[in-house]
Amino acid sequence: MSAVVTEVESDTTARSGLREGAFGHAVALSCRECGHRVDLGPFYACPECFGPLEIAYEFPRVTREEIEAGPRNIWRYKALLPVPADIEQSPNMEPGFTRLLKANNLAAELGLAKLWVKDDSTNPTNSFKDRVVACALSAARELDAKVFACPSTGNLANAVAAAGARAGIKTVVFIPSNLETPKQVNSAIYTENLVAVDGNYDDVNKLASEIAGEEDGWAFVNVNVRPYYAEGSKTLGYEIAEQLGWRLPDQIVIPVASGSQLTKVHKAFQELIKVGLVEDKPYKVYGAQATGCSPVSVAYKTGTDAIRPVKPDTIAKSLAIGNPADGIYVLDICRETGGAVEDITDDEVRAAIVLLARTEGIFTETAGGTTVGCLKKLVETGQLDPELETVVINTGHGLKTLDAIADTVGARATIAPTYDAFQALGI
Amino acid sequence: MSAVVTEVESDTTARSGLREGAFGHAVALSCRECGHRVDLGPFYACPECFGPLEIAYEFPRVTREEIEAGPRNIWRYKALLPVPADIEQSPNMEPGFTRLLKANNLAAELGLAKLWVKDDSTNPTNSFKDRVVACALSAARELDAKVFACPSTGNLANAVAAAGARAGIKTVVFIPSNLETPKQVNSAIYTENLVAVDGNYDDVNKLASEIAGEEDGWAFVNVNVRPYYAEGSKTLGYEIAEQLGWRLPDQIVIPVASGSQLTKVHKAFQELIKVGLVEDKPYKVYGAQATGCSPVSVAYKTGTDAIRPVKPDTIAKSLAIGNPADGIYVLDICRETGGAVEDITDDEVRAAIVLLARTEGIFTETAGGTTVGCLKKLVETGQLDPELETVVINTGHGLKTLDAIADTVGARATIAPTYDAFQALGI
Repeated sequence: MSAVVTEVESDTTARSGLREGAFGHAVALSCRECGHRVDLGPFYACPECFGPLEIAYEFPRVTREEIEAGPRNIWRYKALLPVPADIEQSPNMEPGFTRLLKANNLAAELGLAKLWVKDDSTNPTNSFKDRVVACALSAARELDAKVFACPSTGNLANAVAAAGARAGIKTVVFIPSNLETPKQVNSAIYTENLVAVDGNYDDVNKLASEIAGEEDGWAFVNVNVRPYYAEGSKTLGYEIAEQLGWRLPDQIVIPVASGSQLTKVHKAFQELIKVGLVEDKPYKVYGAQATGCSPVSVAYKTGTDAIRPVKPDTIAKSLAIGNPADGIYVLDICRETGGAVEDITDDEVRAAIVLLARTEGIFTETAGGTTVGCLKKLVETGQLDPELETVVINTGHGLKTLDAIADTVGARATIAPTYDAFQALGI
Repeated sequence: MSAVVTEVESDTTARSGLREGAFGHAVALSCRECGHRVDLGPFYACPECFGPLEIAYEFPRVTREEIEAGPRNIWRYKALLPVPADIEQSPNMEPGFTRLLKANNLAAELGLAKLWVKDDSTNPTNSFKDRVVACALSAARELDAKVFACPSTGNLANAVAAAGARAGIKTVVFIPSNLETPKQVNSAIYTENLVAVDGNYDDVNKLASEIAGEEDGWAFVNVNVRPYYAEGSKTLGYEIAEQLGWRLPDQIVIPVASGSQLTKVHKAFQELIKVGLVEDKPYKVYGAQATGCSPVSVAYKTGTDAIRPVKPDTIAKSLAIGNPADGIYVLDICRETGGAVEDITDDEVRAAIVLLARTEGIFTETAGGTTVGCLKKLVETGQLDPELETVVINTGHGLKTLDAIADTVGARATIAPTYDAFQALGI
């Protein structure tokens, strides 16, 4: 893996018509594959090798005290993000700094010594996407975009439409036309430009890329401002470390869709070590997938380096990316750190959703069920050390995927409104 | 109104078999009507006059610095709540310290100089009920209750079932059997004891009171531990003052169901003045109801002191209490502070939900729509001064009342997956 902290000779932002410090301490876009550098701008693919571009920084000195004195949201870490120093002054959703809950009941159930749940279901639009979208919004603003857009089937659409409304920038959200009404409402509530596209998610995505290429001034969060967007996931890692008292956990289990979140949490841990905010120590990173869309888990288990794309078939729709862009980096990280990638069936996903709710009072969406269920399987198969301190990430709220669990739980009984009828229940 | 800080001669908790400091600095239960006092315990009605019992305290010295050094949840105010000093050590949902968002877009839309939204939709189970339930849970634990229970149709059921799961106490939640499946799932996910009762909410409520009277060791949050439960709403007031930089707003708009939340926010402001955490200043309190269940607004407008019960008929179901227990106290507070009580139609509720989402990226439930819509009407009718600093409370998340808005918003258009089709939209 490339070094997470990089240096260049000059300040590239000064050359490109951007305002000074538009992207904070970011200095360039750097190709993850070949290392080629380009100026900061609305670019996402390396002009030399088409590899993914990542943000390169020259980090300043930053102390725990400065961070702790910051706002109770992701901007407390602004010195480590591609955002300007005055980011709090621009209207935004103020996401992040969600609860890190000690999960003693779930730990006991799974036979773990020490377990924490990082609960991103309490973000403003109830998923971790508020983090990445907040960083994409900052980039859109600095690049003077006129439209803030995305293709999505769920969480991302909610986050983009909401953040754009609050920022006062025009939003356009593209969805497959067969999306269920409740999911359409969750985005349409925030924007008058919800556009239904006759086709599947791949068709919607392709159309978005075409529009991003043809139209000026459109910032598609997960297309042409993706490098900035993706950096937002680092804040999950920063928060976990800070909330543990400025130290890293021994093990962490993270869901894998494109794989971006897992790579960015690892990047966050490496950066914290590099800038001296936490002590260096070994930790193991585990990826979680649903069996119905498990190309990375399959590659991990077969010991190959190549990801074979699949056609997704799982209730964990927010993880259903058949050709994950960062899959190979996930393999690298999980193997290098001594972790693993695991997958579970849809029935195991449902059971894990109920398990988390009944042990810790957290109602997670199918992606979180996948992650908790994989944690369970990793313990049972001896791949995860039950004695080590473990963190599991819950990325979103169960209210968004109610249909997945609606037939699994329900009323214990229906009774007449009398004390006798109650007593007969034997509760 | 009675003084918010009261004193008694001796520590009553020592007499009743409770552990020392079980209820923090609370010293007795005091009748809101006649002032009669009883020992702290699972009591809610005055034995002398049947008036409602409230917590009486002997507050210690408490500083801003102590509070600011506390946890990022309601327990930072534990010195002002009926909870023990070690409350953070008991597993709980860690609710509160939700966002106070500067709402410039909504302010501009309504013609207000300075507006804040206190956004409780990001609490653990997505409503302010997590606050009150956390205080009820502490009381249940200290009173050695074996079962944690409630009658409810929505938010309260979610909060009780989730908090009980995390605390490892048996929960039983009673609902009307005709409740829609999604709402049943939202509670059944956390508890195996969701009991459907053939009858309306009044029938369910009556059954709960009967069980509370007959069974030992049952803590019904909104029945026999109600005095402790209700105190949780004070934290909304504490947080608003702290988040404004330890000062009170000029005006605040609060939804009215039973009326408890409004009276407790006012109590919180009074307590903060009394213990010297904020400067004394005048502020106006406004109540918000839906016209289909507006007994307090009707009484306010007709200038009477008596609340005439109504049969609710509104989409704002979480506000649909036809005979509000604290209605007369709401009238007192709104009149004494120079505020008002207003009500709006269901169509205005829906419009306000969309307005808040499209201006600030906050998706509120019907109760929040009622509050924002009443704020709008209060400005338009000249009852609220547009030049004064105003706070409006959003009590819960729109995902919980999706059906109320599902026919109001939707996709702008459905198009073929081609660039030409997109261009024809003229976005």
